[in-house]
Amino acid sequence: METNQSERIGERALKRFCTEILMKVEVPREDAVEIIDNLVEADLRGVSSHGVMRFPIYVERLRAGVVNPRPKIRIVRETGSTAVVDGDNGMGQFVGKRAMQVAIDKGSSGDCSFVAVRNSNHFGAAAYYSSMAVAHEMIGLSFTIGGINHMTPWGGAEAILGNNPFSVALPAGEELPVVLDMACSVAARGKIMVAAKDHTPIPDDWAVGPDGQPTTDPHEALKGFVLPVGGPKGYALTLVIGLLSTMLSGAFFGSEVTHMYDDFEQPQNIGHLFGVLPIASFESVQSYKARMDKAIREVRNVKRAPGVERIYLPGEREHLLAEEYRRSGIPMPPTVLTELRDLGRQFGLKL
Amino acid sequence: METNQSERIGERALKRFCTEILMKVEVPREDAVEIIDNLVEADLRGVSSHGVMRFPIYVERLRAGVVNPRPKIRIVRETGSTAVVDGDNGMGQFVGKRAMQVAIDKGSSGDCSFVAVRNSNHFGAAAYYSSMAVAHEMIGLSFTIGGINHMTPWGGAEAILGNNPFSVALPAGEELPVVLDMACSVAARGKIMVAAKDHTPIPDDWAVGPDGQPTTDPHEALKGFVLPVGGPKGYALTLVIGLLSTMLSGAFFGSEVTHMYDDFEQPQNIGHLFGVLPIASFESVQSYKARMDKAIREVRNVKRAPGVERIYLPGEREHLLAEEYRRSGIPMPPTVLTELRDLGRQFGLKL
Repeated sequence: METNQSERIGERALKRFCTEILMKVEVPREDAVEIIDNLVEADLRGVSSHGVMRFPIYVERLRAGVVNPRPKIRIVRETGSTAVVDGDNGMGQFVGKRAMQVAIDKGSSGDCSFVAVRNSNHFGAAAYYSSMAVAHEMIGLSFTIGGINHMTPWGGAEAILGNNPFSVALPAGEELPVVLDMACSVAARGKIMVAAKDHTPIPDDWAVGPDGQPTTDPHEALKGFVLPVGGPKGYALTLVIGLLSTMLSGAFFGSEVTHMYDDFEQPQNIGHLFGVLPIASFESVQSYKARMDKAIREVRNVKRAPGVERIYLPGEREHLLAEEYRRSGIPMPPTVLTELRDLGRQFGLKL
Repeated sequence: METNQSERIGERALKRFCTEILMKVEVPREDAVEIIDNLVEADLRGVSSHGVMRFPIYVERLRAGVVNPRPKIRIVRETGSTAVVDGDNGMGQFVGKRAMQVAIDKGSSGDCSFVAVRNSNHFGAAAYYSSMAVAHEMIGLSFTIGGINHMTPWGGAEAILGNNPFSVALPAGEELPVVLDMACSVAARGKIMVAAKDHTPIPDDWAVGPDGQPTTDPHEALKGFVLPVGGPKGYALTLVIGLLSTMLSGAFFGSEVTHMYDDFEQPQNIGHLFGVLPIASFESVQSYKARMDKAIREVRNVKRAPGVERIYLPGEREHLLAEEYRRSGIPMPPTVLTELRDLGRQFGLKL
């Protein structure tokens, strides 16, 4: 997402600025630090669509009282290996982290554990949660329903489905973990939003306008439908991820899901599902890791197509970007920076 | 797969014919019945690519002694909610069903359960296993590595990845279960083979040639690689499904995977992963089902695009086909019938 006009902002300055704003809207400092860590982690990994670009709307929702800055997150039902978590309408980044931790804690006994969540909000990048499992020698899974309906069932012409993302993170040994994080559209709507803010055209297979015709105009695309990856495959996938994320907890689905950017009247009741598979319950961690490393190296060292310099594993590019951005700052598009600075001015804070 | 030349074969006649052939190659009757039930179920659901079209190669592998007709399937490691199953090189349909049953049995205690499998073979349609969970009020999941490497990592030019499928089945109330079953390529390789026979060009997003460059020439495409759905997304997805299916059990991955149709020297050591989430551990089954029905009806009744007669839920079309084919026979293409009848002749059996 780096453009010529991008300005590099240091990780620490960005975190401090955003954390202080969250505190101004009644989020406790410790919680704010965690939430902003999640957001800026996405920016560091080059996933700017789930980074601080979303910060202004999060703050707006908190100020409007439609997101709870001090949620009492609680387990409303549980067994040894399952739980349903009620997020008390807290920020998704905060609720999600707590709920994933419940899955990890339960998984520490050796059980596969799944935790369903209701009364949450937009949780940002799915990889943040699945990756939490890696340090515990577990495979991590995360699913969420999106905070905006901008997809339609295959053959439909009405936005009742989100572009629902999911993530799977597999630990490795000496190699980096393999981290899949994908939504079900050809391109994330956040990328279209970035393009709209920058007034740059989008590829014609990303979306159709409200008239159902392919468009390269990001503004038209935002009024229409995001296209699913692989046509009916992507429709089926986004539907199933949406159901997995909501049906086990009583979170909203379909037309119940209000628009994160347009509706400031009622809480969104967003749902997630988190899961862990503890490796040691299946296989010695050592052999698992050795086999993962072998598989990763084989993929990386595969014969390359002409002109291709390097084969990346899922999550590797993001890891390398984060290393670079930690050193030399995060490139921020001018539109995002302007929004952040405008926001700061309202609270007497400078970025 | 129905064409003008298709002949309709009754479900029972087809099952009897195939079961008897399996028995001729030393598969015990009861096991043969189960295996053929799985295969013909795919044909009934219109998923002919995983039906009896595969029967000749299965028989060939059994006769060559590279698949075990009388496997001693055993659990080699387990906890309350996990197991590793060794399939003893039995047919994938048989091993898969046994292993999914282990997951369901463990899930009956209320735990989420996952079972990793090694020393199995090509297991056919992933939906068969995930759907087994539905009658037990559980969400079912199944993953497998493919039996042939057709795909290359994104940017690569070497076939070390399978077109790995996975399936998720969610029970509903009065409505049909929602059953996602997808592989990770844009189009099946079989479609490219048809185009090659007809010497007609293929869309440029189906495959690349041996050099890794996009091609519309089906002959070049067959020498090359099937393209993943959504480009790098499909690559990441097929890789992760492959890792999930193999790393927890010690099944083969990457270049270890031999070609199901070409190698009759060594067992394939195919891996799968099966999982169940028991609904009652999260939510009252009654409310879950009511909410599923509501969601399904909302999707079905969504505003339709011009010219669209009906919106299908994942798995619905297959269910309706099966109802029709059970009544009026399964349409079988002449090439498949010829192969089956040739096979029958070798065993003195008629279809």
